[in-house]
Amino acid sequence: MQLRIPGPTPCPEEVLRAQSRQMINHRGKDFSVIIRKVTEQLKRCFQTQNDVLILTGSGTSGLEAAVVNTLSPGDRVLGVSIGAFGDRFADIARTYGADVKKLSFDWGVPADPDAVRQALKDDAGIKAVLVTHNETSTGITNDLKPIAAVAREFDKLILVDGVSSVGSIDLPVDAWQCDVVVTGSQKGWMTPPGMAMVSMSQRAWQANEKAKMPRFYLDLGRARKIFDEKGQTPWTPGISTLYALDVGLDAIEKEGLQNVFSRHARVAKVAREGAKSLGLTLFARESHASNTVTAINVPSGVDGKKLLQILREEHQVVLSGGQAKLEGKIFRIGHLGWVAESDMNVVMAALKKALPAAKGA
Amino acid sequence: MQLRIPGPTPCPEEVLRAQSRQMINHRGKDFSVIIRKVTEQLKRCFQTQNDVLILTGSGTSGLEAAVVNTLSPGDRVLGVSIGAFGDRFADIARTYGADVKKLSFDWGVPADPDAVRQALKDDAGIKAVLVTHNETSTGITNDLKPIAAVAREFDKLILVDGVSSVGSIDLPVDAWQCDVVVTGSQKGWMTPPGMAMVSMSQRAWQANEKAKMPRFYLDLGRARKIFDEKGQTPWTPGISTLYALDVGLDAIEKEGLQNVFSRHARVAKVAREGAKSLGLTLFARESHASNTVTAINVPSGVDGKKLLQILREEHQVVLSGGQAKLEGKIFRIGHLGWVAESDMNVVMAALKKALPAAKGA
Repeated sequence: MQLRIPGPTPCPEEVLRAQSRQMINHRGKDFSVIIRKVTEQLKRCFQTQNDVLILTGSGTSGLEAAVVNTLSPGDRVLGVSIGAFGDRFADIARTYGADVKKLSFDWGVPADPDAVRQALKDDAGIKAVLVTHNETSTGITNDLKPIAAVAREFDKLILVDGVSSVGSIDLPVDAWQCDVVVTGSQKGWMTPPGMAMVSMSQRAWQANEKAKMPRFYLDLGRARKIFDEKGQTPWTPGISTLYALDVGLDAIEKEGLQNVFSRHARVAKVAREGAKSLGLTLFARESHASNTVTAINVPSGVDGKKLLQILREEHQVVLSGGQAKLEGKIFRIGHLGWVAESDMNVVMAALKKALPAAKGA
Repeated sequence: MQLRIPGPTPCPEEVLRAQSRQMINHRGKDFSVIIRKVTEQLKRCFQTQNDVLILTGSGTSGLEAAVVNTLSPGDRVLGVSIGAFGDRFADIARTYGADVKKLSFDWGVPADPDAVRQALKDDAGIKAVLVTHNETSTGITNDLKPIAAVAREFDKLILVDGVSSVGSIDLPVDAWQCDVVVTGSQKGWMTPPGMAMVSMSQRAWQANEKAKMPRFYLDLGRARKIFDEKGQTPWTPGISTLYALDVGLDAIEKEGLQNVFSRHARVAKVAREGAKSLGLTLFARESHASNTVTAINVPSGVDGKKLLQILREEHQVVLSGGQAKLEGKIFRIGHLGWVAESDMNVVMAALKKALPAAKGA
């Protein structure tokens, strides 16, 4: 089976097996040793000296944590969106009472840093910028570096959805001065879903002191306090997932972070070139095509749903369809985490056979 | 190693091993088959026809979900508390803007249903009652049946923290007409931590329609919709934990729910009698002593912390200390989930040796 969706991603045997370890006391020393080790490794992968906190929850819980721990109801925020996940980030802020000013771009193109600058120039009341680094729904990687620089230029907080980028695509949190960055265990970390990881800068902690959005389960201040004091989490954590993350991080560090990034770039190139060689067209603007997910237009005359079904049932290749307004219009190949060029060759060979079968179906 | 804390609890080999299964598409058919099966089994264990929804998070995320999905800021609620978890439930409601009227009892005794009745009589403005079924911090099981009956009598919503009771101690959700009931995977379910399970009555859904507390990640309405329509969860779920829960539930149903309850009662009796035979005294009023956790007073002249250390390091028995104001004053034996009388005999044999060693330490 080739599970090639943008998460959950397949996990190496040793990661899966790590989960078979018996439970331990989450208030005991053995636990604190593991979570401290994992946290140090995450910091290296985030390329940051900032606090990185581990939450038991999906990536979306991390996005919510980013919002509710730094903002107050009524705060004006700029919600930069290039797809479904940018929309989601803005929706979370709106749900908790933020005054969200949306800066939306066409799906399939990246956000324009100059447009972000203009939006911040036009409205001095904006307190924070919400932005997706890698938009999983469209297969675009935003130019986060210049966007973050603009946020710094105007002295705004920048909250980054790095769910499908951190650990797979270069995102040097400190060098780019990103205040809050969120990822999820089921993406590049070669780990099952169930944990969100969030980095918080000093500036984010300062905002946290004044932030009035309600939070309890996702209270990062509470998480930082008990982690610093005891190497624990406020609530009972997903211990098996932590065991898995522990092993996944070892694999990343053994390969070397830069090598992991390069591998993702190579694999993505195989995916894009392979698709084009089959006569397919890419949905995302190629200059900003993501190294973790490739979005491909469903060719005319092909039933996208049928194509995915044939791939799954006859070729054991599982891909994703389009989300929201792209349903039926694109399909997506996830290539992050435990993935090599050879996996993309398998996917392309299956696509080559499945495409004609899905035509006029 | 005897891990005998009130969760995480040890898991049977087959439960742990289930987590080694490779990831699957959480938007695919295989996933929906599992979550639908697990949900049906959970309903039987909750003894309910109500919806039961599975969240990726700790038990506390389930308590937060109970509050934010049924209440609005400013709503007056009665927070019945007999310990740390009753306090926590009330704190969550207060955090989200509820006007919490606290009805606290001494730690170590159960809530008095008549006092609940009087409180509801005294204040017609109360909308909901928050109550802990089994208070893990003190080892008391509340008389939930009459408390729930009082809530019905006054037509109030009743939200129940059943984290350490459902599946281990009889809690017939429909017979007792409990509106929202919460549990967590790491308790009686013989499953690692990482999932919360929440039942919602029709009355709870009616409250949900008007409830204005902000919610996104923990939005149960969203969870119900996508579960009913597609057998999915709104956000990527902890797939490995679901694999484990699947097997844990099979084990419970194979044994038979009533047999599981009886076993917990027998094991708890061995714990209480064993402690008394060692000259120890129970912290909780024995008429309401919990079948999932036994709280024991640290005898005078004994250093409680040292006792736990000796048990852990010299006898491979891991117990819990006291929480909050009971720190150093009691220690607690968890006996829920995968546990038999023989395990308590091991714990008692270790205690017998460790107690003199911890005296005057």
